[in-house]
Order: sequence, then C-alpha cells, then structure tokens
Amino acid sequence: MSIITLTTDFGTKDHFVGAIKGTIYTELPNARIVDISHLISPFNITETAYILKNAYKSFPEGSIHIIGVDSELNSENKHIALKLDNHFFICPDNGVISLLAAEIQPEKIVEINIHDRIKTSFPVLDVFVKVACHIARGGTLEVIGKVIPKFRQIIELQPSISADNTTISGNIIYVDNYGNSISNISKKIFQEVGKGRAFEVIANRYIFKEIYTKYSDIVDFSLPKEQRQKDGTRMAIFNSANYLEIAMYRSNSNTVGGAFSLLGLNYRDVLTIKFL
Amino acid sequence: MSIITLTTDFGTKDHFVGAIKGTIYTELPNARIVDISHLISPFNITETAYILKNAYKSFPEGSIHIIGVDSELNSENKHIALKLDNHFFICPDNGVISLLAAEIQPEKIVEINIHDRIKTSFPVLDVFVKVACHIARGGTLEVIGKVIPKFRQIIELQPSISADNTTISGNIIYVDNYGNSISNISKKIFQEVGKGRAFEVIANRYIFKEIYTKYSDIVDFSLPKEQRQKDGTRMAIFNSANYLEIAMYRSNSNTVGGAFSLLGLNYRDVLTIKFL
Amino acid sequence: MSIITLTTDFGTKDHFVGAIKGTIYTELPNARIVDISHLISPFNITETAYILKNAYKSFPEGSIHIIGVDSELNSENKHIALKLDNHFFICPDNGVISLLAAEIQPEKIVEINIHDRIKTSFPVLDVFVKVACHIARGGTLEVIGKVIPKFRQIIELQPSISADNTTISGNIIYVDNYGNSISNISKKIFQEVGKGRAFEVIANRYIFKEIYTKYSDIVDFSLPKEQRQKDGTRMAIFNSANYLEIAMYRSNSNTVGGAFSLLGLNYRDVLTIKFL
Repeated sequence: MSIITLTTDFGTKDHFVGAIKGTIYTELPNARIVDISHLISPFNITETAYILKNAYKSFPEGSIHIIGVDSELNSENKHIALKLDNHFFICPDNGVISLLAAEIQPEKIVEINIHDRIKTSFPVLDVFVKVACHIARGGTLEVIGKVIPKFRQIIELQPSISADNTTISGNIIYVDNYGNSISNISKKIFQEVGKGRAFEVIANRYIFKEIYTKYSDIVDFSLPKEQRQKDGTRMAIFNSANYLEIAMYRSNSNTVGGAFSLLGLNYRDVLTIKFL
Repeated sequence: MSIITLTTDFGTKDHFVGAIKGTIYTELPNARIVDISHLISPFNITETAYILKNAYKSFPEGSIHIIGVDSELNSENKHIALKLDNHFFICPDNGVISLLAAEIQPEKIVEINIHDRIKTSFPVLDVFVKVACHIARGGTLEVIGKVIPKFRQIIELQPSISADNTTISGNIIYVDNYGNSISNISKKIFQEVGKGRAFEVIANRYIFKEIYTKYSDIVDFSLPKEQRQKDGTRMAIFNSANYLEIAMYRSNSNTVGGAFSLLGLNYRDVLTIKFL
Repeated sequence: MSIITLTTDFGTKDHFVGAIKGTIYTELPNARIVDISHLISPFNITETAYILKNAYKSFPEGSIHIIGVDSELNSENKHIALKLDNHFFICPDNGVISLLAAEIQPEKIVEINIHDRIKTSFPVLDVFVKVACHIARGGTLEVIGKVIPKFRQIIELQPSISADNTTISGNIIYVDNYGNSISNISKKIFQEVGKGRAFEVIANRYIFKEIYTKYSDIVDFSLPKEQRQKDGTRMAIFNSANYLEIAMYRSNSNTVGGAFSLLGLNYRDVLTIKFL
C-alpha cells in the first residue's frame, strides 16, 4: 500500500487534518499516512517547496504527496496531479511544483477534472484525497484528469551570477526551527562558479570567510572549554539539504536567539558570495 | 481493527500523548491511532466540540474517539462512554457531547465504573485508553460502566432568533488557524429563517451584504490583477463546516492579520444577521 | 514489528521529521513510528530526559527510541546505542541517558561505529535511523558498534537533603503545557525523608502546606459553586509522573496564566520542602 503524505498550511489545532485522515482511512483502511508539515505559513508556496523538496526523496518511490497550500479552486488556480521522479504529487497549479523540482521533467501531468461531480469548499478533503486514494489503488492519472503539457512555472528567488563570474547573489528563502536563515544558494552552484577560489559571504553587515559543513566544526576541541567558541557564535554552513545557511552555533530562538532575529536575516533578504 | 482518535488539550511537547499511544500499542499492537487535535485551549469544551464535530464524521463508523479535555474525575465530573451516530466517544460528562451532537440521540450511554480498580491521576491514560481498547476488541459498554439515561446538557452559545423572525443573533465560537472568526450560525438556520430575503451581517462596526461560499469568490477574475480585491479584504463566508465565518481574504495571522485580530472578533463576541 | 519512537528538538514545521519517517518506511514498510515530542527546547537534554522518562515505559518492551537532541557527532559527542530496561535507545552520549534512567543498569552499550561508511551532517536521519532499522530487524548491537562499559554521566539538578534530614532542596526542571512548574523532587524521596512529618513547601515567596494528588482535590465540592476555589488558585501537587509540581488550578498560560508566569517559577529555580 502506498504512503500518502500531507503538506499543508492548515495548522494542527483545527479539525482539517483529522478530517482528511479520517476520509483516507474510510477509503483505504490500510493506508499509511505521514505528516510532512502542517505549519507552512499561510499561502506560502516558497516554504512549501523548500520543505517538500527536502522531504519527498526520503520516501519510497510511488509515494503520493498531497499539497494543501493555497488550494482553493478558481479560474486561475486549477488542480493538477502529476508523476515526477517516480513520486506522485496532487496540488494546485500555483507554481509550487516548479520550485520543488525545477530540473526534473514530469512523466505525466493531468488537470484534475472530477470537480463537476464534487461540490466542495474544502478541495483538499473532497478532491485531493479522492485522487490520492485512486492512485493508491493503482488507478491511472488519465481517469481523474485531462493530460496537459506542463504545470505553471514561477521563477522566483533564483540566485544570480555576475557576468564576470565573481559574485553569486541569492536570497533567504526559509527560516528553520532554530532560527537559522537558509538561502537559495546551493553547494553545487557555489562549487561550479567558485572553482575553489577564496571567497567572502556577505549577509547584511556580516562577513564570513569560511563555510562549514557541520555546526560543531566551528569549535576547536583542542582548546580548553572556556576558550572555545560560545553558543550563539555566527557562522556560514552548507546545511544537510546542501544550501548555504547563516546560523548561530547552538542557537535557540527563545534564548540566545537565531540568525533570523539576531542578524536580521529575514525571508527574501539578500546574501552575496564574492570570489576573490 | 477500529480507529482510535485523540482530541486533547495536552499540547504536543509534553510526554502525555506519547505515553497514551505507547499504552494503546501495548494493548493493541495493530491499532490505528489518529491525532485530531492536542492544541485545544486548556479546559475549553466549546472548542473541543467544534473541532470534534467537524472531524468525527469523516472517520469510518465504529471509530472510537477519546476526548481528553477537562477529564479529571471528581464528584461533579464523571466519566462516560457512549455510542452515538455509530461512533464511540469516551469523555468526561462535562457537556461536551451535548455541544457535539445536539440533535443526535445516543444509542447507549454508560457511566464508566472501573475506577475502583484503577488509582490514577491521569485518567485519560489509565481509564479512557483501557475503555477504548475494550471497545476496539469488540467489548460492550455495559462491561465497563452502568447504563445511564443521558449525558449532561449544557446550552451555551446557541444562536437566538427574534420573535418576528427578522434577526438571528449568534456568537463567535472558534478562531481558526488563519485567524478567521467562526460563529455558531449555521447555513441551515440562516436559510430556514431567511427564506431567501435580503440581509445584512453585522459584526462589530462592520456590515457584510453577501455571504460567500468560497474565499476566492470575492475576487473578480475578469479584472486586471492590480484592480482586484487585495489580500486581507474582509468577507463573510459559509465555511467548509457550513458555519458563518468572518474572514480576511488570504489572511495570515502573522502578517496581514486575521478577522480575529484586525476586526476584533474574539471568542463569544456577538454577530447579528438582519433580514430586510 | 518493533515500534520506533522519535524525541527531537526539530520542531514540526521543517522537513526533518518527515524525511526521517520516509527513510524508516523505505527500509521497513511495516514500521510503526510514534512521535513522542519534537518540541524539546533546542539542545535541552534535561527536558529530553524528563519527557522520555515519562513516556518510554508506556511502550511495549523491545521498543526502539531515537533521541535527536544535540546529536551532531564530534570528538566530544559520540553516538551510542543501548539496551536498558528492555528498551533500546539510540542517542548522542551527552548524558541524557544518565538523567533518563539514573538507577537502571543498562544491559549493553555500544559506541556506534558505522560513521566511516556514512558521510553526513544529519546523523539522526543517516545514522540513527539505520541503527534503529537494524535493531528492528532483530540485529545485534555489536554489529553497529563497539561495546563500551558506560555512558556519560551528568549529575545535574538532583535534589539535596540537609544533613539533619529537615530540608529537601530541589529545582524546577520542566514547565508543562499548562504552565505548571515541575520540580525534580519525587514523591518517593519526599516520603523517605519526611516519614509522615508535617511540612511546608516553599517556592519563591509562596508557601504550601499541603501536596495534593489530584488538581480538583483543592475544591470543596460541598460548598456552593460561588464559594469554591477559583480557577487559577495556586497549589502543590504530586503530578501523574510523581514529581512535586507547583500548579494553578485549571491554569491556562494564555488567559489566567500558569505557575511559571504568575509565580515566576522558571527552569532551574529553587523549591524547598521544610519538615517541621
């Protein structure tokens, strides 16, 4: 039985998520349902893409991912289902897929057209779940929609490279649970452009001359404890998702603070790498 | 194997919910446990009823719903288990069921009387879970309690209709994840009293002359984008649970704000519909 | 199939928890995964120990508990797996186990040594999950690590008893979902030292002459409702985990407030019992 994952901005207090799970279990008593996140900022498709991009590949091939963010059906926001990278996605055609999988060609995309049979103001429950259960039972995409050539593209917050290859300019695209500010500059683009040159990372008025790969790499364990880097020291790191992140060592948004609050590195703020 | 759902005010940080699930799996290794909500405001049975009312019907018949809100046993707060609408509920007899299912007659109610065998200050874990597992194994209610004729009724926050049928007065009973303020005025009562007459919805100093059924119905998609309704425009809508809700289009409690914060529509505040 | 539980400080918004679950299901399609908590304060091992100590015993023997708090591998923070009290724990060797199970001797401890095969900056995903799945399939600890004689001991925030046995001094070690402040003074130590003597509990400038075992024991139900204890009355109680807790009757951190906010009883603050 396929896994069905849920990524929404519904929160976990309201009845929405419970109702969705009840409906899935009613149709598929043996379903395995996994919450990826319900705490997406309302209507924020950049966040949705960042979270789902870094989670979906950990699931087995054939998993079905329901995306319930900004999903109300209207003349400019159709519902689509697609097979991509051997996973299925059911979501609004609002561009989230183009952020999620920019370089991967979908195998098939359909515009869902079972709405005429379903009158609803809660399409994630009434439409997306039905489509997910159909796919989980081995049904084809063509039965629930019309094949379309492509999903909506949005090009947003891509890092840019200067003509002389000396600068990469990116933006903060996500602030994580620890208050760390994550940019859209990947390790891959950094290595391709930099080719091993020395560099500076500039974020607001802060300059970083090293990019770590582990948080505790900032600590010199050969020193006595009282001479070491302290909690809250700022650092640049390629995080476990391989994006350049400005972090505070052992940060805590509630106490010492995080890069987001202490360095003022908020969503959409600029981050620059200068190669020397 | 039946589904067991959990609706509590325990939050998701403490050990309570984990301990409950561990206990259920110890008794029933193949149980399917679903969280409906653990973020009920402490002791708030109105919220509990609103959430569970809108979630339980999505579950298969025979599902067992544990309600862990205000559940400490004392001389004025007994524990009950009941079958209602082909679902089982295990909860304190504090009126939550009367809010949850005002119009549905329970098939059977018992006052749980296994407490003499169980000394506990955590009855949801030690009593409710035991009862749920008993029911899940096909046990009858009579084995764990004494049949009683009815549960406690509380009549709270029901909308009232003026003698001349020109006004419905209701209250805000819930603020959702988006900051939208939801009233206790159902679409059904609106239609029965209004009989198609023109109307005004009055909430604080705001007047609404239309009640939408989809959030994006407020947007005129024939207009160019820059002339359209903006995010944060206030609107009245029958939500997906069919209650009258005062919303802000694409609201975000953290940025543009929601009806709750921007219009000052808080829990228990009055909302009036005047038929013209 | 064994149960795998997760206790982390990852929060529930980011992709971390979803990715972990996807990885487990990829290796073990029939796994049963239970979240204990993902809301541990970042890097706080005292909180971790308190939560897990009160949750793990409710799970069946043989359950596998992954602890993802302060788990980055470095020269002073090794990874260990152990069998203790017929449960398995996979965690950093940062002392959390000594807080969790001070009096229980582990049956076997290994220092995990599969890191040479796994390059990672997300060890909970890449190492702990692999170890958990190995154990769940019946694998032995020796295959994934080298047997070591003991885990790291930290002695922190233990209550102290005065030489003349008249005083127990403890500290607040946890603030729960209701804002109640929980100390490290157990009912057991209270009874052993106090031997039935009269006592006073002193917390900041507040004195409590009684320790209740149920919250509603503070209410005299023989009185008319308007003369009874009010919501928000302060009280001392042995909570369901058998620790001395300073609580507010029917507290709500968001409205009437809890002991934490109203009495100023924060993490690490002192609490004293004087026997008279």
